[in-house]
Amino acid sequence: MLHTPHGTVETPVFMPVGTKGTVKGLTPGDLRGAGAGVVLGNTYHLYLRPGTDLVREAGGLHGFTGWDGPMLTDSGGFQVFSLAKTRRISEDGVDFASVYDGSKHTFSPEMTTKVQEDLGADIAMVLDECPPARADREYHERSLRRTARWAERCKAAHTRQDQALFGIVQGGLHADLRHESLQRTVEVGFPGYAVGGLSVGESRKEMFETLALTAPKLPADKPRYFMGIGDPVGILGVISLGVDMFDCVLPTRLARHGAALTPDGRMNLKNARYRRDFGPLDPECNCETCTDYSQAYLAHLVRENELLGHRLITLHNVHFTLRLCRSAREHIRAGDYEKWAASWVKRYEDNGGRPAADK
Amino acid sequence: MLHTPHGTVETPVFMPVGTKGTVKGLTPGDLRGAGAGVVLGNTYHLYLRPGTDLVREAGGLHGFTGWDGPMLTDSGGFQVFSLAKTRRISEDGVDFASVYDGSKHTFSPEMTTKVQEDLGADIAMVLDECPPARADREYHERSLRRTARWAERCKAAHTRQDQALFGIVQGGLHADLRHESLQRTVEVGFPGYAVGGLSVGESRKEMFETLALTAPKLPADKPRYFMGIGDPVGILGVISLGVDMFDCVLPTRLARHGAALTPDGRMNLKNARYRRDFGPLDPECNCETCTDYSQAYLAHLVRENELLGHRLITLHNVHFTLRLCRSAREHIRAGDYEKWAASWVKRYEDNGGRPAADK
Repeated sequence: MLHTPHGTVETPVFMPVGTKGTVKGLTPGDLRGAGAGVVLGNTYHLYLRPGTDLVREAGGLHGFTGWDGPMLTDSGGFQVFSLAKTRRISEDGVDFASVYDGSKHTFSPEMTTKVQEDLGADIAMVLDECPPARADREYHERSLRRTARWAERCKAAHTRQDQALFGIVQGGLHADLRHESLQRTVEVGFPGYAVGGLSVGESRKEMFETLALTAPKLPADKPRYFMGIGDPVGILGVISLGVDMFDCVLPTRLARHGAALTPDGRMNLKNARYRRDFGPLDPECNCETCTDYSQAYLAHLVRENELLGHRLITLHNVHFTLRLCRSAREHIRAGDYEKWAASWVKRYEDNGGRPAADK
Repeated sequence: MLHTPHGTVETPVFMPVGTKGTVKGLTPGDLRGAGAGVVLGNTYHLYLRPGTDLVREAGGLHGFTGWDGPMLTDSGGFQVFSLAKTRRISEDGVDFASVYDGSKHTFSPEMTTKVQEDLGADIAMVLDECPPARADREYHERSLRRTARWAERCKAAHTRQDQALFGIVQGGLHADLRHESLQRTVEVGFPGYAVGGLSVGESRKEMFETLALTAPKLPADKPRYFMGIGDPVGILGVISLGVDMFDCVLPTRLARHGAALTPDGRMNLKNARYRRDFGPLDPECNCETCTDYSQAYLAHLVRENELLGHRLITLHNVHFTLRLCRSAREHIRAGDYEKWAASWVKRYEDNGGRPAADK
């Protein structure tokens, strides 16, 4: 159980991503209906547009967006490192140019902590550097040490008692560096820990191996957050390694490209075979999309690039991913998680699921 | 009251347009919530995509889209004349190239009647030619006579007892030609009549003058449908002239461009003045958008071109337009319609409404 000022959430839990203060196409009511626990906001985007001051004036992200459940914001660091064309990193922080208009900005540990306090999510993240998995060992070593020093500065700058600040473990694919980063971060001391720097270009095998070395060493009494996984097979894999929370734009991004998640793999609704199928997308799903609409209608909406198609498939994919987590929790409680997860993955992959490409 | 196999609707009524089998961004539940009576489908688009056979197999437009209230389909003629690059009109019908893929098709009176029977709306329309208002008099004369002959052929071809087929009056801006078209169409005999060929390039003044000459001569015991009006001032004007039904993509199209309808005129949400306004769009509106979201949030969504913005403003604009019709009905019953409509228009125009550009 994850307790926050805006409610208690059962874990393991998938957190839908509301990049710019909206999970694309869905209302807070839609998210509640789908059983969402925590919703993410991206500090990078919200800081630039509409701006932190405006969100704070609106009563924080909760007041601004109308989502009254638990929220988490990232530090914005990941977007600075993945989106920004020009950036300069120093001990002090990172200078970057806005992806929107090229304007110059600086994120420091103190500043992203303050911005996240203004955004007012229940959980905030320390500023970290997220180097590419394939960066050289020396770079990872220097970087993780700076990230640990930044973590300390974030903690010192953090003042809100109604907001938890989580630390982030880096270290690339190097077991000893992961261990060092974990020790340094735990030494600073946070109410929750994330594993960052995975799902950034390495293979699935490397990702799971690295996570398997890291996750068990995290404090058992604190929530463990894996940053950036949202495909069904990946989710079941990280849960198996003890992860409690995870997020990814995959389910919502897939939907906008016309792909629906089902227990029998991904369905690309642009495929001709769905055009005349008058059955539901996923007969085992009780979401609005699967209850009220046929594959044929959804396929038509997708082909015509209709707003309603984006919305209905997004609704289903979020519903599906949250339901998968609910099932996982039930099987963890029942004590047969590994057996259930293996058979779930087998069915998904046998029927066309594409886990390797699912990132 | 308009009685249809899928329910009874109070008139005057605005009919939201579901061009391709969806009112862009809204579910049938959204439409019911907004109080929609009749929903339109476009035969031209549905015939080409996903195809009439497929819609019929799905149980007609009702089964395909999930909207279980009254529906109306046009004949497709208007789109052929307005969208098609190449077309050839003859006594038999009209040949045209699909706007999607250039493939060749022919609409004849018999064929569009059959297509509409397959689509299965409660109300179907005869195939008519809709010439530009400024076409010369001789053209209008020849065209309206052919349209009357086509109306007869449509009626002869029409077999569904559970579907009403409406006639259409043409004749451009010429009073005598309008009169001739009306007489010829009424002679064929239909359970409802539309006024077509207006809102196609003439001035507002010409439109109202021509409608004022035509509408009063239509049979008083049959519904009168004005094709193609959806701005508030236009709606109140045609109601004043005795029109019962009207449709237009304007409220939904405006929404996708970030413009919201309010009693104080149109609001362009891209305008900087709405960025920090934390009040509702329209304090007098009880739709989900006005109840749950601020102008500032909606302005943010519009600026970021977010799906949710399109959806929420569409929901409001449809709600607003249907509510305007509800108010009109109340004031007709109360006997003070003209006075109320004049003061409504004054407030709308005084505060920035732009009726001339509202088309």
